[in-house]
Amino acid sequence: MEKVVILGSTGSIGTSTLEVIEQHPDAFEVTALAAGTNVQVMIEQVKQFRPKLVSMATKEAALSVKEAVATSVKVCWGDEGLQEVASHSEGTYVVSALVGSAGLPPTLAAIRAGKKIGLANKETLVTAGHIVMEEANKAGVSIYPIDSEHSALFQCLNGERSEDVRRMIVTASGGAFRDWSRQELEKATVEQALKHPNWSMGAKVTIDSATLMNKGLEVMEAHWLFNMPYEQIDVMIHPQSIIHSMVEFHDGAVMAQLGTPDMKVPILYALSYPNRMPLKTEPLDLVSLSRLDFREPDYSRFPCLKMAYDAGKAGGTMPTVLNAANEVVVATFLRGECTFLDIEEIVARTLDKHANMRCPSLDEIHEADRWARQFAQFILANRTA
Amino acid sequence: MEKVVILGSTGSIGTSTLEVIEQHPDAFEVTALAAGTNVQVMIEQVKQFRPKLVSMATKEAALSVKEAVATSVKVCWGDEGLQEVASHSEGTYVVSALVGSAGLPPTLAAIRAGKKIGLANKETLVTAGHIVMEEANKAGVSIYPIDSEHSALFQCLNGERSEDVRRMIVTASGGAFRDWSRQELEKATVEQALKHPNWSMGAKVTIDSATLMNKGLEVMEAHWLFNMPYEQIDVMIHPQSIIHSMVEFHDGAVMAQLGTPDMKVPILYALSYPNRMPLKTEPLDLVSLSRLDFREPDYSRFPCLKMAYDAGKAGGTMPTVLNAANEVVVATFLRGECTFLDIEEIVARTLDKHANMRCPSLDEIHEADRWARQFAQFILANRTA
Repeated sequence: MEKVVILGSTGSIGTSTLEVIEQHPDAFEVTALAAGTNVQVMIEQVKQFRPKLVSMATKEAALSVKEAVATSVKVCWGDEGLQEVASHSEGTYVVSALVGSAGLPPTLAAIRAGKKIGLANKETLVTAGHIVMEEANKAGVSIYPIDSEHSALFQCLNGERSEDVRRMIVTASGGAFRDWSRQELEKATVEQALKHPNWSMGAKVTIDSATLMNKGLEVMEAHWLFNMPYEQIDVMIHPQSIIHSMVEFHDGAVMAQLGTPDMKVPILYALSYPNRMPLKTEPLDLVSLSRLDFREPDYSRFPCLKMAYDAGKAGGTMPTVLNAANEVVVATFLRGECTFLDIEEIVARTLDKHANMRCPSLDEIHEADRWARQFAQFILANRTA
Repeated sequence: MEKVVILGSTGSIGTSTLEVIEQHPDAFEVTALAAGTNVQVMIEQVKQFRPKLVSMATKEAALSVKEAVATSVKVCWGDEGLQEVASHSEGTYVVSALVGSAGLPPTLAAIRAGKKIGLANKETLVTAGHIVMEEANKAGVSIYPIDSEHSALFQCLNGERSEDVRRMIVTASGGAFRDWSRQELEKATVEQALKHPNWSMGAKVTIDSATLMNKGLEVMEAHWLFNMPYEQIDVMIHPQSIIHSMVEFHDGAVMAQLGTPDMKVPILYALSYPNRMPLKTEPLDLVSLSRLDFREPDYSRFPCLKMAYDAGKAGGTMPTVLNAANEVVVATFLRGECTFLDIEEIVARTLDKHANMRCPSLDEIHEADRWARQFAQFILANRTA
C-alpha cells in the first residue's frame, strides 16, 4: 500500500492524481494533502479521501477547511504547513504538483525525509536541478516524472542503459499559436492563448505552451532527470500530441511512448513503477487518427524555446531568472496587462541584465528569483506607464 | 565474446548478420556457417570471417567450397552438415535464417544444444511453435526475434511484465499491392509483386508481403514468442514501415519501436540484448518524413491474412498446412506458372481439405507438410493442365 501525499491537490495534476487513486483503492491511500486557497474543493477531497493532515496556503483558508471537516483531521497552513505535509511520517510517496517556484522547498523536504517523489512541478528541477538531484542521490530517493513528456522518456528508458542513448526527442504540440505568423502573434489575446489544441491544463502552463517556453522548461527538466547533455535533447513539433516523446539509441532504434492525451497515464505510471496498473482511459486509436505529423520547431517565431536552451546550457542562476521573469510576465499577460510578445521580450531583457552565478546555493537561487521578478516587474511597469 | 553460428549465411538475413558482426569484431566472432548452394558467396564469407565449420546443402557445393578455402576449415553438407553446424560445440549463439520449413530441424538441434537463438526463420514457430517453445523452456534457452516486427515487440516489452500487456499491434506496410483493387490483383505480375515499397528482402517473403500472408505468419510467430492469445494481436497497415510494431498496456500507454527500415537493427539487438551497441545505419528523420499514416487492413482484398489468423486459432497442423501450401504456390507464382490470386485460392482449398490434428508431433507436422505440398501441387497441376 503506497501512502500518498499530494502537494497541490486541488490543481489539475492534484485532482487527476486523486482520480487515479480512486481507481486503485487497494494500492494507494491518501495520507496528506496541501493546496492553495481553494477551500471548497479541499473540503470535498478531505471528505472523500480522509487524509490525516491538510495544509492550506493561508490561515484563513485553513480555518475554513477545519470548520467543515472531522476533528481527527489536522489542518495547518503556510510554508510550515506545507513542509509538514511534505514530510509527514506516514507518507511513502509525495506527488509534487504545486505550480511555480513555491514547489521547491517542500519537494526538498520530502526528498530529505526519504519519500519517493512523483514530480510534476517543473521549477524544482529548472531552478535547482543540481541541488535536487544531488539530494535525491544522497537520500537514495527516486524521482518519477509526472509530465507526459518526461514520463514518456522514462518509459522509453525502461530496461535500457543510459550509455546506449544517442538523443532524446521531446515532442511539442506547438501550442495554441503553432501556425501563427509573427504579425498575428502581435495581436494574440489571452483567450486565444488559452486554447490549447490537445491538453487541458492550468492557465500558466497553457500560456507557456503557446510561447514554447514550456517546452524549454521541459528540456531543462529532462537534462536533470536523465542526466542528459542539452546537445542530446531535441524538440520536435508533433501537432497531435500522440507520441509523448522518444528516445533514440546508438543502434538506430527509436523507442516512443504514445497515447491519448490524459495526465492520468503518467501519474499512474509514476505511482505504480516499475509495474503498470489498469486505468480507465480512452484507448489510442491510430486508425481513427489516420496520421501523425512532425516538423522542426521554429525558433525564430518562438524565441522562448531558444532562450530556454541557452539558459539551460549557461546553467547557474540563468534558468531561475528565465523562469521567474516568465512567471511574472505570464501572470501579467493573463491579467490582460501586457501583450503576448511582451513575454519573450521581457524575459530576454531580464536574462540580458543578469550576472550569472555558477552552482548557486538555495539562498542564491532564491535571491536570483527575487531579483528577476522585481526586474521584470520594473520593466513592465515602465512600459505600461 | 559471442561465438556466432549462422544458418543461411548467404541469404538476406545472413549477409546482414555478417555486416553487423563486421562492425563489432570485439564482441562477435563467426564459428560456423551453413548455406544452400551459393558457393561463391560462401567462399568469400569463409575467407573474411574464418569459421571453423561450413555446411552446404549439397555435396557438390560443399566440395566446391572445400577446394577454395583453407584446409583448416571443415566443410560438410546436407541435413547432417546443417545439424553439425547448428550444434557446433564452440558456438554460443545460433542465428536461424534459413528460408522455409528446412529451418526447423537445425533450430531444434541448436536449442537442444543449449545455444541462444536469434530467430529469423518464421516456419520454426509457425509449424512447430508448441514444440519449439517447450524445448526452449526445457533447455533454458532464450529465443531472440530477428524479424523487425518481433524485435520491435520485444523491445517494447523490455522491462515490462507480460501481464500488463493489453494487446500487440503488428504493423504492416501493406506490401506491393496495398492500394490495388481485386480486379487489378487478378492481373498482378511477378515483377509487380516483387516491388516492396520499403524493405529489400528475399523473393518468397516479398510475395508473402504482397498477399499479407507474411503478416499472418508474423502474427503466429508473435503468438508463440510472446505467449499471446490471437485475440490480443492486431495488425495495422502503416505504409511507411517506420513504426515496426507496438505494444499497448492496460494503463493505456502504447510503446512503439521506430526506425528506418534496416534489418541490421533487429539483428544487432538480438545479438547484443539486453544491451545495445552502436550501429552504422541511417538515423530516423521524422521531420523529413513529415508524417506517418495508419489504417485498418482490408481482409476482403487480402484474404490470406484472415486465413492465417484462422489457421493460427485452429492450431494443430493447420498452420503447417497453410505455410506448406503457400510455399508451393508462391514458388509456382515466382516461376510465372500461376496467377497472383491462385495463391490465396489454392491455400484456401488445401486448408479446406485438411483434417486438423491437435498437438502434432514433429513427424506428424512433417507428414502434414508433405501432404499439403502434394495436395497444392495436385490442384496446381490440374489447373494448368
